[in-house]
Amino acid sequence: MTDEIRKIVPEIEELLANRKFHELRSMLSSYEPADVALLFDEIDEESIPILFRILPKEMAAECFVEMDSDHQVTLIEAFSDKELTAVISDLFVDDTVDIIEEMPANVVKRILVHSDPQKRKEINELLHYPDDSTGSIMTTEFVELKPSMTADNVFAQIKKTGVDKETIYTCYVTDPARHLIGVVTVKDILTAPKEGMTVGELMEDQVISVGTLDDKEETARTMSKYDLMAIPVVDNEKRLVGIVTYDDAMDVIESGDTEDIEIMAAITPTDKPYLKTGVFATWLKRIPWLLLLMVSATFTSGILKHFEDALTRSAAMTALIAFIPMLMDTGGNAGGQVSVTVIRGLSLGEISMRDILRILWKEIRVAILCGATLSVVNFGKMMLIDRVSISAAIVVSLTLVCVVIIAKLVGAILPILAKRIGFDPAVMASPFITTIVDALSLLVYFKVAQLVIGWA
Amino acid sequence: MTDEIRKIVPEIEELLANRKFHELRSMLSSYEPADVALLFDEIDEESIPILFRILPKEMAAECFVEMDSDHQVTLIEAFSDKELTAVISDLFVDDTVDIIEEMPANVVKRILVHSDPQKRKEINELLHYPDDSTGSIMTTEFVELKPSMTADNVFAQIKKTGVDKETIYTCYVTDPARHLIGVVTVKDILTAPKEGMTVGELMEDQVISVGTLDDKEETARTMSKYDLMAIPVVDNEKRLVGIVTYDDAMDVIESGDTEDIEIMAAITPTDKPYLKTGVFATWLKRIPWLLLLMVSATFTSGILKHFEDALTRSAAMTALIAFIPMLMDTGGNAGGQVSVTVIRGLSLGEISMRDILRILWKEIRVAILCGATLSVVNFGKMMLIDRVSISAAIVVSLTLVCVVIIAKLVGAILPILAKRIGFDPAVMASPFITTIVDALSLLVYFKVAQLVIGWA
Repeated sequence: MTDEIRKIVPEIEELLANRKFHELRSMLSSYEPADVALLFDEIDEESIPILFRILPKEMAAECFVEMDSDHQVTLIEAFSDKELTAVISDLFVDDTVDIIEEMPANVVKRILVHSDPQKRKEINELLHYPDDSTGSIMTTEFVELKPSMTADNVFAQIKKTGVDKETIYTCYVTDPARHLIGVVTVKDILTAPKEGMTVGELMEDQVISVGTLDDKEETARTMSKYDLMAIPVVDNEKRLVGIVTYDDAMDVIESGDTEDIEIMAAITPTDKPYLKTGVFATWLKRIPWLLLLMVSATFTSGILKHFEDALTRSAAMTALIAFIPMLMDTGGNAGGQVSVTVIRGLSLGEISMRDILRILWKEIRVAILCGATLSVVNFGKMMLIDRVSISAAIVVSLTLVCVVIIAKLVGAILPILAKRIGFDPAVMASPFITTIVDALSLLVYFKVAQLVIGWA
Repeated sequence: MTDEIRKIVPEIEELLANRKFHELRSMLSSYEPADVALLFDEIDEESIPILFRILPKEMAAECFVEMDSDHQVTLIEAFSDKELTAVISDLFVDDTVDIIEEMPANVVKRILVHSDPQKRKEINELLHYPDDSTGSIMTTEFVELKPSMTADNVFAQIKKTGVDKETIYTCYVTDPARHLIGVVTVKDILTAPKEGMTVGELMEDQVISVGTLDDKEETARTMSKYDLMAIPVVDNEKRLVGIVTYDDAMDVIESGDTEDIEIMAAITPTDKPYLKTGVFATWLKRIPWLLLLMVSATFTSGILKHFEDALTRSAAMTALIAFIPMLMDTGGNAGGQVSVTVIRGLSLGEISMRDILRILWKEIRVAILCGATLSVVNFGKMMLIDRVSISAAIVVSLTLVCVVIIAKLVGAILPILAKRIGFDPAVMASPFITTIVDALSLLVYFKVAQLVIGWA
């Protein structure tokens, strides 16, 4: 088949040269699109658009998909907007994505602009950009200017094309190779100090930009930090390929926070609002974590089991059982306070890996203060209200200090460690901290009891 | 970027020490004001005024706004009257108000004295709005138009006054009594279909607005929902008094989420970043909640104490002690999952009071599914791995179902109830839910044990 089509190349060239388009079309219609695509390798470059336009309509899109990407570029550049829209609307999204992955930035832009919004969204999602990348949230509809333009040129361009742009207020200045060289706002132009200043004179050439593969939440936080209405997105070669606007950044921040909060509460996050999630889906989001945490509690049970005899041996020991929940809860709460603070700090970019020693040093001091306060109050309460023996009060109060210190340190270290090894730090929030601290608390409790009450 | 600025600290210190101010200034001018502001945390306090005076003029005000409030005080105290007036006149009114709110009274007085009368009046007005109100975050610097204006009039006005406005892109149209009658964007004007159209013809007269006393977080969420760059704020008589811009809305959303997260983790929220909060201040944010929760655990201790005899009476009962932590943790986790989901839903405005029955009905079904799953897995685990008696396995597994159902219902109801009586629902997150569910779990556990094992 492949050879067969090669054989007809001279014939095709002749038909093209003689402008016998009708004959050519009926001839081509008997071939497979994948084969016809090969023809484009054989003919002159200037004939490519003509040949494509001759193709039977139902064959055109399929043929386009099969074509070498250089020819696709040639064609897209030759297409009118209407032709491009027609071809793209005939393509499957995954094919469009495959095509786009091979295209230079300006062609990608043109394809995305001429897709309808739904398709564009799907393309962006499917495209090489991972779900959590900046590329997946960017838009390709922005105002692009040349440094030589004057205010009148800019406003004329905005008047002509601006209606379709996501924002016209922040405009990006590029060189002929589409590298981002500056940014200028409509405000800069409207409030220019002199008449007749060019874009090149008015623009700011220190531009904060992000890469297509940068984390989308970090991009949104950067925009928030610098109060940006839009941020330019560049590819590996530093060419401008898109922008992210403040409204999308807000959505990312809101849903990122929701995700963090859900993970911290041991729920698998989803984008769906609570009331729209079915009972089964809700169960599925929660049960794996409940199971995992329940099974992890085996350690705690094991420890208790181990000390079962000791606990029932004397009244002094039995009295200690009543304070197990209080110790465990306090440990969980104290650890949760730190871990959630650290997780949020990491999320907002306020703290990073290299702050670990500062955090630990701070938390040790806070833990001693908190532990001591709780211990004193607890000792008073146990003596005056619970009226237990002084040795029991000492055991519980001493344990309390240790538990709070352990919990604070575990709560500070685990989220940072999680981040370090590439996990979401939010996983290391109260539920996990509680499970770990529970086991440690019990060990300390019995060790202290052994020392103070003196059983072997 | 943030890390980048930290790296140049030694270099900056050296340039400062050698009084190479010119070099220092040109070096700093390539950074963003928000990053330069971080430098002030790193250098000696006595160098702060020197460094500030070196800053390029256009950067100084923006940098001042982003700075830690302690450094702002240091600077204001070091400023001559003339310097203070210059800095204040470069600040937006809403930023000035934010700064003033953190300052000691004598500094506030000095700032007000050095503001021009119009600005002082606006500052004073804004200062009277409650902390969480929209009035407290709005700015009074916006472009106000009359319906009869043409595009040329508008651009002339923007050219004259626009430099000082926080946004020029969304302009507000008012009648002679300053009632808001419409909104028009610079984009509408630039892309107007015909020459010579007036503001009245181009404006949108359906305007989304908020009141000065509306909750600021709700205002920010409204802006996010409708993708608004700015939202007009009206007083009781529906007169336009200010606007809120997207950058402030983003900050409100971020810090609102941080606040929710902190409250959910039983921490008193503050605006200060973690690393800048001192040990004592951190202790103060955490200890009241730890104390409260510790004392609340008295109920749990009381219940355990009450059943102490029963627990030590037989080996079958003693075996049950080992599973107390697992039951309590599972209850806490299951309840926390719901409460956090409901709290977030309330915060985002996705659920409200009238959804309570739908939520309960849904959570009952989810709870039964979760409880049953956990119960079955636990029964298997206790029989096969822990190798306990069948009656112990039955007691624990039956209790597990009840605990999960109770926890889910408590977790669903309490945040909504809290909202109903005017408390922050975020208080009703895992720590409180855990404390309540702990006590209920133990009661159920012993009741079930009584029924199954049969002690009186």
